[in-house]
Amino acid sequence: MKIIDVIPVVQSINPEDLAGRTAVVFDVLRATSTMATALTNGCRAVVPVVEVEEARQAAAMLENKGIPVLLAGERGGRKVDGFPHGNSPLEFPPEVAAGKTLVLTTSNGTRALAAAARGARTVLAGSLLNARAVAGELLRLGQDITLICAGSEGRFSLEDTLAAGMVVLELVELISGNRPEEGSLKLLPLDLSDLTVTALHLARAYRDNPRAAFDHSRHGRRLAAMGLADDLDWCARLNVFPVVPVVKPGEGDLLSVITNRDENNTGRITQKGSDPPS
Amino acid sequence: MKIIDVIPVVQSINPEDLAGRTAVVFDVLRATSTMATALTNGCRAVVPVVEVEEARQAAAMLENKGIPVLLAGERGGRKVDGFPHGNSPLEFPPEVAAGKTLVLTTSNGTRALAAAARGARTVLAGSLLNARAVAGELLRLGQDITLICAGSEGRFSLEDTLAAGMVVLELVELISGNRPEEGSLKLLPLDLSDLTVTALHLARAYRDNPRAAFDHSRHGRRLAAMGLADDLDWCARLNVFPVVPVVKPGEGDLLSVITNRDENNTGRITQKGSDPPS
Repeated sequence: MKIIDVIPVVQSINPEDLAGRTAVVFDVLRATSTMATALTNGCRAVVPVVEVEEARQAAAMLENKGIPVLLAGERGGRKVDGFPHGNSPLEFPPEVAAGKTLVLTTSNGTRALAAAARGARTVLAGSLLNARAVAGELLRLGQDITLICAGSEGRFSLEDTLAAGMVVLELVELISGNRPEEGSLKLLPLDLSDLTVTALHLARAYRDNPRAAFDHSRHGRRLAAMGLADDLDWCARLNVFPVVPVVKPGEGDLLSVITNRDENNTGRITQKGSDPPS
Repeated sequence: MKIIDVIPVVQSINPEDLAGRTAVVFDVLRATSTMATALTNGCRAVVPVVEVEEARQAAAMLENKGIPVLLAGERGGRKVDGFPHGNSPLEFPPEVAAGKTLVLTTSNGTRALAAAARGARTVLAGSLLNARAVAGELLRLGQDITLICAGSEGRFSLEDTLAAGMVVLELVELISGNRPEEGSLKLLPLDLSDLTVTALHLARAYRDNPRAAFDHSRHGRRLAAMGLADDLDWCARLNVFPVVPVVKPGEGDLLSVITNRDENNTGRITQKGSDPPS
């Protein structure tokens, strides 16, 4: 019987509770959606960084090693002053992303990733864009699961909890072979917490129209009012990328590095063609 | 535009955020369901008390004044040692409840009521049993609203959030005149937080079978395993009591007193027939 818990906000993370587990971090608007997009579009890695100054230093360090970098940061939904990139997934099409390493700092998402990495055995980055791919990886790993919602300014986030629910829904379908009815959950080898059940209900409610959840969410409405409706449209697409962003311990001064699982990367960031023998 | 927030657990209550608001406390399994039942069955008042020793003292004080008391308490789902009553609504049928004052201490519910009373303008006790009646009172009062879920051992509770959602659903229907569609919420004069929207989705999912939510809830399953399935059946009935339990400041040594709104009681507990002129 595998346990699935959902943590509602980054402030509620207790790294000790994550021991031996697979954690998935959700910051749907927009950090983890941007990570999934950048990796899909050819970024070699994403370096998640909590503080703005830390991001500048990480970018400089990588550039000194000859590694091409995209420096991106967001606070309160806006690009960090002086940074070339903000936190919009639309800033990283293939022609920008290919071969680059994305150094990214955001208000909630990178903080949640750092906290998760302190406790969990494996940490993934989830979003609506890659919910099914993440569910497949969770099934493959076979550990107890904690789904971590970054939240908005310390408050419960509809869109993060929805994405967590979408991953659970995909996982349940992978296990059961079809969409489960209300009562059939007890037949599954899963022990769902109350918030996990709630997330599953959100997934059912919004599955046919995830975009509506952003209209019902305070953070979604705030971003729309800032003129970022195109970002919302992008982030609302369900299961369009097979990417599975996995956090790995970085080497040297880097706290951690996120790469696509299929890259079989060990946290080493290298220039194309200069991969060391493994 | 009235704001409706939901607080997921008693530990998240910040009394300052409740200023000027109507708060409704939900501890569906079982404190607030028991209060609604006891008041419906003829209890003159409920005295919610946080600590066990405090409950003994309050009961003794009332009995010294010649007021007939029912002393009831629960910790971890079980009756407090030496107390004549536990926290089951089935312990308070009319022949037991009539004319009595119920002094009640529970693990989460009475704590949430005490915290709410420190900040809110008005505090009500909500449950599935009286969701519609509470919604009507909220509409009548016309203040911003904070729905406070007691939670289970500091964790999100499916049944408390469901009951909060049922009150919102009833309120929306009272305002709109019918069941709202997904998209029509934006037409209502309500500003719903992300967790309030989530609670509303739970209400829609379980409206035709609230009892199923207790099977999906960890606390519900725990109570069922303790042989309390009859309590669950009782607490799962939707909108069966028109009672609106209102918390009022108590007099003398009593922190607060809960009576039915229609009683027009001012927090004074008296014997039947000895009400002072008002």
